[in-house]
Amino acid sequence: MTIQISKLKDGKVTFQGMIETVRDKKNIQFVILKDFSGKIQVTVDKTKYPEVGEIFSHLLTGASVTVTGELVKSEYVKMGGQEVLCDGVVVTSTAEVYPIGPESNIDQRIDYRWIDLRQEKNLLMFKVQTLFTKALRDFLEQRDFIEIHSPKLIATASESGADVFEVKYFDGKAYLAQSPQFYKQMAMASGFGRIFECGPVFRAEKSHSRKHATEFTGFDLEFTGIESYEDVMHLEEEMIAYALQEVRNKYGEEIKEVFNVDVVVPELPFPRIKLKDLYDELEKRYGYKIPDSEKDDLSTEAEKMCEQYCKEVYNHEFIFVTDFGAKKRAFYHMRKDGIPQGYDLIWKGVEITTGAQREHRYEILKQQAKEKGLDRDVEFYLQFFKYGCMPHGGFGIGVDRMTMNLLNVSSIKEAMFIFRGPDRLNP
Amino acid sequence: MTIQISKLKDGKVTFQGMIETVRDKKNIQFVILKDFSGKIQVTVDKTKYPEVGEIFSHLLTGASVTVTGELVKSEYVKMGGQEVLCDGVVVTSTAEVYPIGPESNIDQRIDYRWIDLRQEKNLLMFKVQTLFTKALRDFLEQRDFIEIHSPKLIATASESGADVFEVKYFDGKAYLAQSPQFYKQMAMASGFGRIFECGPVFRAEKSHSRKHATEFTGFDLEFTGIESYEDVMHLEEEMIAYALQEVRNKYGEEIKEVFNVDVVVPELPFPRIKLKDLYDELEKRYGYKIPDSEKDDLSTEAEKMCEQYCKEVYNHEFIFVTDFGAKKRAFYHMRKDGIPQGYDLIWKGVEITTGAQREHRYEILKQQAKEKGLDRDVEFYLQFFKYGCMPHGGFGIGVDRMTMNLLNVSSIKEAMFIFRGPDRLNP
Repeated sequence: MTIQISKLKDGKVTFQGMIETVRDKKNIQFVILKDFSGKIQVTVDKTKYPEVGEIFSHLLTGASVTVTGELVKSEYVKMGGQEVLCDGVVVTSTAEVYPIGPESNIDQRIDYRWIDLRQEKNLLMFKVQTLFTKALRDFLEQRDFIEIHSPKLIATASESGADVFEVKYFDGKAYLAQSPQFYKQMAMASGFGRIFECGPVFRAEKSHSRKHATEFTGFDLEFTGIESYEDVMHLEEEMIAYALQEVRNKYGEEIKEVFNVDVVVPELPFPRIKLKDLYDELEKRYGYKIPDSEKDDLSTEAEKMCEQYCKEVYNHEFIFVTDFGAKKRAFYHMRKDGIPQGYDLIWKGVEITTGAQREHRYEILKQQAKEKGLDRDVEFYLQFFKYGCMPHGGFGIGVDRMTMNLLNVSSIKEAMFIFRGPDRLNP
Repeated sequence: MTIQISKLKDGKVTFQGMIETVRDKKNIQFVILKDFSGKIQVTVDKTKYPEVGEIFSHLLTGASVTVTGELVKSEYVKMGGQEVLCDGVVVTSTAEVYPIGPESNIDQRIDYRWIDLRQEKNLLMFKVQTLFTKALRDFLEQRDFIEIHSPKLIATASESGADVFEVKYFDGKAYLAQSPQFYKQMAMASGFGRIFECGPVFRAEKSHSRKHATEFTGFDLEFTGIESYEDVMHLEEEMIAYALQEVRNKYGEEIKEVFNVDVVVPELPFPRIKLKDLYDELEKRYGYKIPDSEKDDLSTEAEKMCEQYCKEVYNHEFIFVTDFGAKKRAFYHMRKDGIPQGYDLIWKGVEITTGAQREHRYEILKQQAKEKGLDRDVEFYLQFFKYGCMPHGGFGIGVDRMTMNLLNVSSIKEAMFIFRGPDRLNP
C-alpha cells in the first residue's frame, strides 16, 4: 500500500492522491493533491520536468494520480509549510468537468452525491459520525451489551400497522421492519440481558420534512435489570454525554472551524419535565397554548420551543419529557396508573429518541395491544412473552438525526450518506 | 438498576433473575437463577420463609423474579461455591411450559427461537460474535476507516441482475440491495478513502443449503491507496488474525469447553494458491478431477477439500485462492492480462469472503459491464467513475457464516439470531 498524505515524511516519497486544483505558471506548476487524510502541495519545475508539467496541465479536478518526488519544508507554502518537489506522475484516473458546484441546490447535489461528498465538511461529518457511533458501542460493550442483527424482512406489518413497505417474497409477501423493537425485546425473552443494534429502519411515510427519510440508520438498545424507566433515562444520558465528550476531544476544534458549532458535553443529570408541566411553562413564558385535544402528545411547535426553554431555565441542550398520554404512545410501553412509563429526549428542539420501560407481562401486553386494535397483527410478538421475560426497557436513536443535530445541519438530506425519500431512490 | 448476577458480592443482596430450575425438598428449596452474566443458587429455608417457598414452588422454568437475601460462601455448592439465603421474592413474570426441548429439531426450535436462544451455548455464540465484530471494527478504526450506512432500498436490480427482492415503493418499485458493493465504491469516488459497513444484505435465492439465508449480515470494506489486490489480501489476513486473537484471549477456554473447538490464531501470511494449481494439487493428492467446463470457478467439492489440503500442506486453516476465470467473476473486478485481480478466502473448507482490486476507470468498467450484458442495469453505478476515482479494492465477510465456521456449528440457521430462508419468515 502507498502511504496516506497525512503521514508522508521528509525525503523521497511515492503516494496517491486526487487533484483538487492545478495552478499553471510559465515555468512552474502548483498542484493541490488530497486524500481522505489531508492535502499537500505538489510543485512541478516545468523547465526540469516538462513531461510531468504536460500531464498535469491536462488533468481536471477529481482526476487521480500517483506522484513521486521529494518532500521538503517550504516556508512560503501556507498549507502545512511543506511541498513535494515532483519528478514523476502516473495518471490513475481521469475526470470529466463537474456537473455541480457550490451554487447547486441540495437536490442537484444529491443527484451527484459522490461529488458533493468530496467537500471537506462532508468528509468531516462522516468522520464525526463514525466516532460518535463508535463511542456509543464502546460505552455499551464496556457494560457487556451484546450486538444483535435482527431481521429486516418480517412476516406481518408491524408496530403501528401503517407506513410499512411491502416486499414480494417468492410466492408471498413480506414487509420491511419499521424498527428492531420487537426483536430487541425477543432478545430480552431470550435471556440476552443487554443488547444493542445499529442498522437500517424503513418508513413508508410520504413526509417531506427536513427531519424525515424513508430509510435511515437506527441505533437501538434494550436491557434488563431495570426498576423503572428512570434507569433507562439514566443510561441514555450517560451514554450521550460520553459520546459527545469523545467527539469534542477529537474533533471539537475542527467542528467549530468548519461548522461553527460548539460541541457541548452535557451535564448530568439531564433536566426532566412532565409533558403537562412543560405546556404550563411554555404558556407562562412564551404565551404558547396547546389545544386540549393535543395535550397528550408533544406538538412540533412545543418541541422546537424546548430549545429556548432548556437554555433559559437549565442552561442545557437536552431535556427528557415524560408522562405522555397513553393514547399517543406505543402499546408496548408499560403503564403505571395509566401513565406510559416512557419519555422523549429533545436535543436543541429536536426529538432524537423515544424510550420506555416495556410491558413484559403477557396478559397485560395483550390487553394493551387489543385496545389499539393491533392484537392480531402482533400475535407473533406477543408469543415472546408467554414463556417468561425479565423486566426491561430501552430506546432508539436516529443516527442521521443525531449527526444533523450535532453539526447544526439544515436538513437530514445533508447528513445522510445517501438520502432516501418518497421521490428519491437515486443514486 | 439492579446488579447483574456475576457481580453480586457477599452480604445483603437484591437482584433479578430468570428461573432455570426449582428443586423442592421437604424443608428446603434449591433454585437456580440466571441472567446474561451468570447463574447462582438461591436457597430457601421453608420452615423460616414458608410464603417464599410457596411462591417458588409454583414457578416454572423461564419465570422471572426479584430476590432478596444474603449471599454467603458455601463449600457444598458446586456452582461458584456460594449461595443466596433467600428471605424474599417478588414474581416479575410467570411462564408457561416450554413447547420445545433438547429433542426438538432445528426447525421446531426456530419456531420458538427465543426459547432456543436461552441455551448457554447460544448466549456464548452471540457474545463471541459481538467480540469478533468489535475486533474487526477496532482494527479498522485504528487505521482511520470511516463507517458508512449505505441504502438498502435501491432503484435498479443490482450487480448480477438476478435474485433480487422487489419492493412496492409508493407508486413505483424499488429493490433490496444484494450487497453494499456499489455504494462502498461510491464512497471511494467520494474521496472517503477507507470505509467499512456492517449491515443486512438480501438474496432472493431459493437455496436450502446449510450456508445460505435470504437475509444475513455483511461486513464490508473498501479502501484506496492500493497497488494491487495483494494489498487487499494483506489487510484481510491481518484483520482476521487480530480478531481471532481477541476471541481466543477472552473466550478461548469457554469455546473449547462448550463447542469443543480450538480457536486457532492463524499465522501470517495465509497460504495463497492459483485456482489452476489448486485443481492440479487436488487431482494429484485426492484424485479429484474437475470437468474442463468448470475450471474457471471453485466447485463446492473443491472448496471442501481445501480444508484437508491446507491442513496437510500448510498446517493452516485458511487459504487464498486467486486467478479465477473472468467469466465467473463480477464485472467490476479489475483484470490484468484477462485475469481478475481478486480472490476467494477459504476457511476450514468454506468460502467466507471474496475480495478484489476494483476496476475504477470509467471506460474499461463500462466495457466489462457490457460484456456481461449489465451496462444498462448498472448505468447509475458507472456514473460514480466519470469524475475521477482513486484505485481501490476491498472485500466482504458474511458475519453469520464466520460465526458458524468459528464455532463449527452445523448450519447457518443455528448461527443467526433469527434465520430467514425461502420458507421461513417467522418469528
